[in-house]
Amino acid sequence: MKVHVHKIPQTAPDDLSGLKQAIASSAIRPDTVVAVLGKTEGNGCVNDFTRGFATQTLDLFFKNLVGPALAERILYIMSGGTEGVLSPHLNVFTCEAAPDNAPRGPGLVLGVGRTRDFAPEELGSLAMVDEVARVVESARKAAGLTVADTHFVQIKCPLLASDVIRAALAEGKTLKTTDTYKSMAYSRAASALGVAVALGEVSRETITEEDIGRNWALFSGVASTSAGIELQHCEILVLGNSPDSASDLRISHSVMQHGLDAAAVRDALSAAGTGEVINVLAKAEADPTGLILGRRHTMLQDSDINHTRMARAVVGAVIASIVSDPMVYVSGGAEHQGPAGGGPVAVIVRKSL
Amino acid sequence: MKVHVHKIPQTAPDDLSGLKQAIASSAIRPDTVVAVLGKTEGNGCVNDFTRGFATQTLDLFFKNLVGPALAERILYIMSGGTEGVLSPHLNVFTCEAAPDNAPRGPGLVLGVGRTRDFAPEELGSLAMVDEVARVVESARKAAGLTVADTHFVQIKCPLLASDVIRAALAEGKTLKTTDTYKSMAYSRAASALGVAVALGEVSRETITEEDIGRNWALFSGVASTSAGIELQHCEILVLGNSPDSASDLRISHSVMQHGLDAAAVRDALSAAGTGEVINVLAKAEADPTGLILGRRHTMLQDSDINHTRMARAVVGAVIASIVSDPMVYVSGGAEHQGPAGGGPVAVIVRKSL
Amino acid sequence: MKVHVHKIPQTAPDDLSGLKQAIASSAIRPDTVVAVLGKTEGNGCVNDFTRGFATQTLDLFFKNLVGPALAERILYIMSGGTEGVLSPHLNVFTCEAAPDNAPRGPGLVLGVGRTRDFAPEELGSLAMVDEVARVVESARKAAGLTVADTHFVQIKCPLLASDVIRAALAEGKTLKTTDTYKSMAYSRAASALGVAVALGEVSRETITEEDIGRNWALFSGVASTSAGIELQHCEILVLGNSPDSASDLRISHSVMQHGLDAAAVRDALSAAGTGEVINVLAKAEADPTGLILGRRHTMLQDSDINHTRMARAVVGAVIASIVSDPMVYVSGGAEHQGPAGGGPVAVIVRKSL
Amino acid sequence: MKVHVHKIPQTAPDDLSGLKQAIASSAIRPDTVVAVLGKTEGNGCVNDFTRGFATQTLDLFFKNLVGPALAERILYIMSGGTEGVLSPHLNVFTCEAAPDNAPRGPGLVLGVGRTRDFAPEELGSLAMVDEVARVVESARKAAGLTVADTHFVQIKCPLLASDVIRAALAEGKTLKTTDTYKSMAYSRAASALGVAVALGEVSRETITEEDIGRNWALFSGVASTSAGIELQHCEILVLGNSPDSASDLRISHSVMQHGLDAAAVRDALSAAGTGEVINVLAKAEADPTGLILGRRHTMLQDSDINHTRMARAVVGAVIASIVSDPMVYVSGGAEHQGPAGGGPVAVIVRKSL
Repeated sequence: MKVHVHKIPQTAPDDLSGLKQAIASSAIRPDTVVAVLGKTEGNGCVNDFTRGFATQTLDLFFKNLVGPALAERILYIMSGGTEGVLSPHLNVFTCEAAPDNAPRGPGLVLGVGRTRDFAPEELGSLAMVDEVARVVESARKAAGLTVADTHFVQIKCPLLASDVIRAALAEGKTLKTTDTYKSMAYSRAASALGVAVALGEVSRETITEEDIGRNWALFSGVASTSAGIELQHCEILVLGNSPDSASDLRISHSVMQHGLDAAAVRDALSAAGTGEVINVLAKAEADPTGLILGRRHTMLQDSDINHTRMARAVVGAVIASIVSDPMVYVSGGAEHQGPAGGGPVAVIVRKSL
Repeated sequence: MKVHVHKIPQTAPDDLSGLKQAIASSAIRPDTVVAVLGKTEGNGCVNDFTRGFATQTLDLFFKNLVGPALAERILYIMSGGTEGVLSPHLNVFTCEAAPDNAPRGPGLVLGVGRTRDFAPEELGSLAMVDEVARVVESARKAAGLTVADTHFVQIKCPLLASDVIRAALAEGKTLKTTDTYKSMAYSRAASALGVAVALGEVSRETITEEDIGRNWALFSGVASTSAGIELQHCEILVLGNSPDSASDLRISHSVMQHGLDAAAVRDALSAAGTGEVINVLAKAEADPTGLILGRRHTMLQDSDINHTRMARAVVGAVIASIVSDPMVYVSGGAEHQGPAGGGPVAVIVRKSL
Repeated sequence: MKVHVHKIPQTAPDDLSGLKQAIASSAIRPDTVVAVLGKTEGNGCVNDFTRGFATQTLDLFFKNLVGPALAERILYIMSGGTEGVLSPHLNVFTCEAAPDNAPRGPGLVLGVGRTRDFAPEELGSLAMVDEVARVVESARKAAGLTVADTHFVQIKCPLLASDVIRAALAEGKTLKTTDTYKSMAYSRAASALGVAVALGEVSRETITEEDIGRNWALFSGVASTSAGIELQHCEILVLGNSPDSASDLRISHSVMQHGLDAAAVRDALSAAGTGEVINVLAKAEADPTGLILGRRHTMLQDSDINHTRMARAVVGAVIASIVSDPMVYVSGGAEHQGPAGGGPVAVIVRKSL
Repeated sequence: MKVHVHKIPQTAPDDLSGLKQAIASSAIRPDTVVAVLGKTEGNGCVNDFTRGFATQTLDLFFKNLVGPALAERILYIMSGGTEGVLSPHLNVFTCEAAPDNAPRGPGLVLGVGRTRDFAPEELGSLAMVDEVARVVESARKAAGLTVADTHFVQIKCPLLASDVIRAALAEGKTLKTTDTYKSMAYSRAASALGVAVALGEVSRETITEEDIGRNWALFSGVASTSAGIELQHCEILVLGNSPDSASDLRISHSVMQHGLDAAAVRDALSAAGTGEVINVLAKAEADPTGLILGRRHTMLQDSDINHTRMARAVVGAVIASIVSDPMVYVSGGAEHQGPAGGGPVAVIVRKSL
């Protein structure tokens, strides 16, 4: 398997000029595209339609270009929120069979998957954990990845919109929350625990319904989950290194213990080895205790700006200052993704020859 | 002159528990307090009343404690906005005569000053530049500081509130702007150019009315100006090192070329020499070109969150990740304070023995 | 009892110019002030310090003017949020004994009370309901009011700040919520049910812990509760008409069934009878179903602006357009205050002769 | 000419379920659609991509349905911002030739037009005024409308995005403003004056460059202009009554003198005559003096929420409370559209038989 990642700037959620150029120049062969992971410039919260706008734009583009059958297998994972210096962009993942005689060695491979749609009452539940775990495991195996070599699992998961909540309550269903913004947290939480279960980081038996979105001792060191109003199922992208890879790229990861953990970012960079940094992928959250490094932060009681927005600005700035590039992927809300207040950070580099 | 700086956390703009404890423990002698420089947790923009709330609270406290005469000389400079990890706190500057036999050597000294009140039509004008320059120079000299040894000039300056604008327009006056948020930028701009003139960084002759708030080639490398609704004049605090200082502290500075300029922060730290970091003081702004390190940022077209707020979150995170302390002083809106998109950064350390 | 209400514009939370003028002109005798009910221009949510700023300013003013003993009995109830056309102002309630020969007739009287401080785990609980009910009943009786003649019960209640939540969790306490903004809703909810119990609108026996903040079938038609970071107890003001009143004023009320219920506002005005309208007092909330008059509203999934802010803007505009005065008192978040999506509305008029 | 207006709720910017249903039921014949005027649920400011998302969705839909040639003539005018109770919806305007024997009488007709693209330096200029005036006049005449019978002119106009500003400045161009949010005001202002000129409300000779966005004495009583990031030209829709109309609908208008001017709304309703109200179309703005009905409002110094957002919430609530329907069209920022602080309001009713 030969995987490439193309980082393409966007001037707006519907800007495909960079992508078109990459295709025109043959840098990207459209029939090899398997996933697009983007940062779009909405608020990253409930009423962020930049994600759907980008997805619709890409979907139409690829359907026209390669036909519906091929296009339908492409995963679109749009994470909203480019607060601070974060720069809107797309990461286009391509995957093709390598010629038999291609040199192989430890390098990037990927697996993809989709869960079934979730009912509103399943959002944030053990049923969601289980279904996510099932698909993650399947995608990992399809990629030929061991658990130890799995470095990042990106998931786009659903949320509960107002009308969905209303309809569910009218039917007498019990929901984890009736707050649209909170529903994002529950969805990310269950998805992350699904990854943790799939990778053996947390034993399924130990997780109770009450743990989801509450017991921060349970977490995955490689899960990155992002909720959106634009889907009802989960889209899943598993990344890791395989000895059988024909890619020029390599991925590594570390776990930030808090939002200012520059050392973890440097660890991930070191582990990736020398080579051009293609992108850094990280999760961010406001420490739920209201403290960071022993100091009070105000993110959790700021009623003007949601804390996930500020968390992205913080972690984005820290990483960007280290790699001297603000075009990095930082997603907000890291429930069960790294320890409370922290989050996984992965680095994709081009292997130097 | 023996100057101390006490960094005191606040749990709210009216929280004096830390200050009271410092006084109770004799760490601070209240009659030696000359200035309080604070970060309060408002939006840092026009309708930020946390600054006034903190100022009123401090003013009452000191008036009761040391009497109105002594209290009135204290400068209160509250900078709103603790976005991201920034942690609300007060920096209490004390200043006392050192005994004749006290050891002296290069160390922190300070000068203070107040301008006259500015009329609405003067805000952002050359008249404001001149008056600020006059008071900065006078404060610098009173502190016994050379221009070269002046490392940070902090100014609290006024803004135009809606009712002030309405009254001024009714009288037929011409204002630089009728937008309350923009008026903050003009006030910071003229104040910063006042510092630049006072320190010879920019020649007064070269500045035209049109340059103010527009010609970013003109700037000071040590000015830090912050606007607020709670005053009509400027409060000015000049910081530097004097060979004749009896303080345990030392200050140094550098100029961040952009919001991610970690190297400049490290330069300022190196220049300060080894020793416990008391605080880092910096200015932040969204690069007015809409680009940072060649990448597009979205801060200037985000109509939900003002760009000064995001700029503080970014620079605050970068500095906090370097010094491992989010309780640093970062103020937003750096017009003529460092180059466009950048800003001065100063470090105060306790000299190691 | 002779009660007056003085509506005084403010240019900022610490603006006392109008109040001072009213005292200077003898319109207000400071020793007769028993309560100040204000609308301040913060966000009305967790980090709204305009309420505390106004309270501190008033408290200092009255302590200096009438001495601590008299001043301490004054209730300060500041409701944040003047979204849309709402205009910041204070309602100063004075109360004095009427001369024996003063004409008496149905007119405004008031009662005041304070609960004990609530522990974090009590916020939003039946214990809070009970304590509020106790104090409301006691204040009503002290005012000489029948239940039927009680037209408005205004309560300022506490919220859970981040540090309070952290400390409580560290002690192993169970809280209704760990979300600061949500804690405001729980506090308003329990306080409102306290009123409903005190006035016999809801039977105490029927209320379970789970009903609080959830079962909207239970509500008071006269409760108006507003949460703030500036206190740990509840301040309570009971308003109604007594046949024994010597006041020139009269109060009446109605219940808005939804935020656009102009008919209810007109009913309350009609019931008050002819006479100059002193103020209209109302509660506002975004309909929790996400629908209003059968149409979808977006307030509950707007992650940029909290729904309580928008609800105030809406109800404020409706009432202001009816009375042609935007200086009305509208408070956001109407849990158990009127039916879901609606809220009580009261009118105070000067009786025409 | 036979014109219909179909008001169709949307659950999201890309929700076409209602439109599809109307077509399926033959209520709408797709080849007769000439314009879609929508309220989408973004912030209505610079970074509102809900407008573009809705436009892209509609454009694709109609291109597939009726072919590119027919589809290209459809105007898409999306106005962002459904603050408060405003309910997202589309107004689909259809227009067809009436049979020769169809009954005719005073009723709704429409004209449409598009200007050329504007260069960045033209935005907010007299050149823009002139081009808009030219196209408005041409559209009015094509509709067979007299000036007196023209009741509403809706324009979608461009704004200056950050990258456009940067490029223009790099080329040495002079712009009216370098602030993206302000650029919306300039664009709306010039477009509105274009309408005023076209309809003889303001004499072209009297307008100077400096008047645009400043001299509020100049205004149109029927212009409604809305800026967006999704176009570089203006889309123009002229509505009025013609004696030769075969429509069942009639339009009338009035001018709100301020945001609470319920009387003007009632005047417009009366003028429209009895009949089912199809929709109310209105402009809203925060009074630039900072006062409304003599009371201070805080919209212009609220740095957390842009004033156009609050203005929409206010006028939307006032109108919705009168017509008992929150699904009305209210657009924010009324520069030269009605007097300062006010704006035009039009009503479309179905003529009762």
